[in-house]
Amino acid sequence: MASPRVVIVGCGFGGLWAAQALKRARVDLTVIDRTNHHLFTPLLYQVATAGLSAPSVAGPIRHILARQRNTTVLYGEVRTLEPARRTVVMENAEEIAYDYLILAAGTTHSYFGHDDWAPYAPGLKTLEDAIEIRRRVLLAFEHAERERDPVKRAAWLTFVVVGGGATGVELAGTFAEIARHTLRGEFRRIDPHTARVVLVEGAGRVLPPYPPELSAKAQLALERLGVTVWPGRVVTGIDAEGVSLGEERLAAKTVIWAAGVKSSPLGAALGAPLDRAGRVQVSPDLSVPGHAEIFVAGDLAAVPGVPGIAPAAKQMGRHAARNVIRRLNGEPTVEFTYRDYGQLATIGRNAAVVMIGRLKLSGFAAWLVWLVAHIYFLINFRNRLVVMIDWAWAYWSYQRYARIIIRGAKSR
Amino acid sequence: MASPRVVIVGCGFGGLWAAQALKRARVDLTVIDRTNHHLFTPLLYQVATAGLSAPSVAGPIRHILARQRNTTVLYGEVRTLEPARRTVVMENAEEIAYDYLILAAGTTHSYFGHDDWAPYAPGLKTLEDAIEIRRRVLLAFEHAERERDPVKRAAWLTFVVVGGGATGVELAGTFAEIARHTLRGEFRRIDPHTARVVLVEGAGRVLPPYPPELSAKAQLALERLGVTVWPGRVVTGIDAEGVSLGEERLAAKTVIWAAGVKSSPLGAALGAPLDRAGRVQVSPDLSVPGHAEIFVAGDLAAVPGVPGIAPAAKQMGRHAARNVIRRLNGEPTVEFTYRDYGQLATIGRNAAVVMIGRLKLSGFAAWLVWLVAHIYFLINFRNRLVVMIDWAWAYWSYQRYARIIIRGAKSR
Repeated sequence: MASPRVVIVGCGFGGLWAAQALKRARVDLTVIDRTNHHLFTPLLYQVATAGLSAPSVAGPIRHILARQRNTTVLYGEVRTLEPARRTVVMENAEEIAYDYLILAAGTTHSYFGHDDWAPYAPGLKTLEDAIEIRRRVLLAFEHAERERDPVKRAAWLTFVVVGGGATGVELAGTFAEIARHTLRGEFRRIDPHTARVVLVEGAGRVLPPYPPELSAKAQLALERLGVTVWPGRVVTGIDAEGVSLGEERLAAKTVIWAAGVKSSPLGAALGAPLDRAGRVQVSPDLSVPGHAEIFVAGDLAAVPGVPGIAPAAKQMGRHAARNVIRRLNGEPTVEFTYRDYGQLATIGRNAAVVMIGRLKLSGFAAWLVWLVAHIYFLINFRNRLVVMIDWAWAYWSYQRYARIIIRGAKSR
Repeated sequence: MASPRVVIVGCGFGGLWAAQALKRARVDLTVIDRTNHHLFTPLLYQVATAGLSAPSVAGPIRHILARQRNTTVLYGEVRTLEPARRTVVMENAEEIAYDYLILAAGTTHSYFGHDDWAPYAPGLKTLEDAIEIRRRVLLAFEHAERERDPVKRAAWLTFVVVGGGATGVELAGTFAEIARHTLRGEFRRIDPHTARVVLVEGAGRVLPPYPPELSAKAQLALERLGVTVWPGRVVTGIDAEGVSLGEERLAAKTVIWAAGVKSSPLGAALGAPLDRAGRVQVSPDLSVPGHAEIFVAGDLAAVPGVPGIAPAAKQMGRHAARNVIRRLNGEPTVEFTYRDYGQLATIGRNAAVVMIGRLKLSGFAAWLVWLVAHIYFLINFRNRLVVMIDWAWAYWSYQRYARIIIRGAKSR
């Protein structure tokens, strides 16, 4: 008899951990992703800020899963799902039938109905995004150096980050560090130190999921780095010349979007109830109501009390895979329980915030925890070693070695 | 009195070495380049073959020259030169006046009048080129894995390198290594080992500038790696489906151009005599006949007996700068003499050819010479260390860590 067919859509933390949990299962596993690499998203902002090269935070999916003989990796995009026929439809109309499906297609950025802002304010979800942001930030200083009009020059030296969550805080802090330290002495007509980095957050404080005292510490650390923090302000317009905040106008040639995410449209194809963010409201065992053969893992699954962070996605992926195995063995599935190992966000050199249960850390100690955790979880040995060297060198020299402008599709 | 204005156009090996030789000169130096980085071109093929990340072979020009207080770096493209007015005209019509000009604008690839081949056969001159080639080669295996038609599949698994010089040999050898070793065990429907790598060279042997016995050894080493070497064959057509060689037709979805270079069009703007390749026929002191204030260095300068390789460009750049200094001091300029430290080309794992004067080396010993020379000349400490780790790891594991497909402008 042929092995049961299991399909995993998406190879982020949810999908990859699900695939690895099925390593020894007697299944015929297909893993589909529209990129050829698993991305270590917690360090993606380092690619966007020229601290790491793209290959340092990405591993080829085929290579990671090469030794799982039960696994086929498919590079391609899923067009839609047909749950009634238990079929995944690819962009080229190829159909892939499954007995069990684990959907881990994640999220993309959302401009809250203002998709016309996208060309002026790239978000940070993919390697392409990171390289585009790196290009824009580095080019802005080059444009400023060549611009003679002081008003236009100031607009090139103004960087706005929209959204004060972990990504926004990390980006704003690092941009300030680049302006203050990395570029020192390299320009002749401008002083990069005069660059202005503005972090806009709609909520009353940065890092809203964190306790207020950590938000306050994060804001203080950002301000110490030279970031202008604007909590409680809502962006109402973005165009090629800057940002509108209600009546107010901020001239800025470089705007980065770190404000909102929306779920993959594949969630809606399931026909199951979605929450406001478009996430699938799964059963306690992570299966889809009415479809016991479909599980959802990672950011696309709405599970009360579970944050949208990498450790949660990994746990869900592994849990979904184990429930598939239970089903195959004729056993009842098990409810998902989230083990909270804490959350952390870095702000810049020597500063971070960490919450682990009731423990709250900030400053240098939190930064050390962040550093060790991120190096530890990087996916393979080589990347870990090279990232450590890059960081040691960057820490000592204030330099960022990936300061390479690569022309892309969206040249301006 | 204001310092004399020296302008250097191009920051490859010729331009950068000229700039550094002017470090202590009392001049007002402007270095113009259309990228923000100096590129270590001898290792560019490693980026194209996923062995190194782009930032590993590139250093930001501003950073390299930051401590030269007499130097301004300008990121931008030169539209033309007006030697009569001693002026460089930028793409935005900005004019830069000079007292001395060092032109080191190098070469680009030439399709010998067949520019329509360019979309089907990218060349390797810039980081963008390297990333595009990497993308095409990696994508070809992905397409082959998804293709059910055996004829089309074979076309996806055929890789043609046009041109058997050093770059062509390096690329073909490494492609074969990827197919044979790197991808082993990662695909389920295709066997990457069956991929065909064909190296086409119009001359009667590969590596034409080398002695015939080294060419023969190189061909043998390539064939041992699995490359099909076709010397004495001329490509007469390239399109989306393959390559024509006279009557013969080779179906191949991936074609790489390593066959010809042409000089920067800025050489022609000087109004000086050019050779057949469009290089400027300079005087023995590297100045331009009729323009004692203009020097040409690097691949754009035609100097009998001097090859178009990095060490020659460096020597010319340094020499041109010193002649500028001599002129400023009221001294006569000095004739350029090339010091031949040899030439080397690598073929793949453990194989290379080296000629140093009358010494000829091949095989493992030559490969060691190649390795040490390339690591030694890499531009800064950090890159050297990381490249050494990458290579040690790759040598031991047969892996290539930069196997990341990044979507670019030219998606297909």
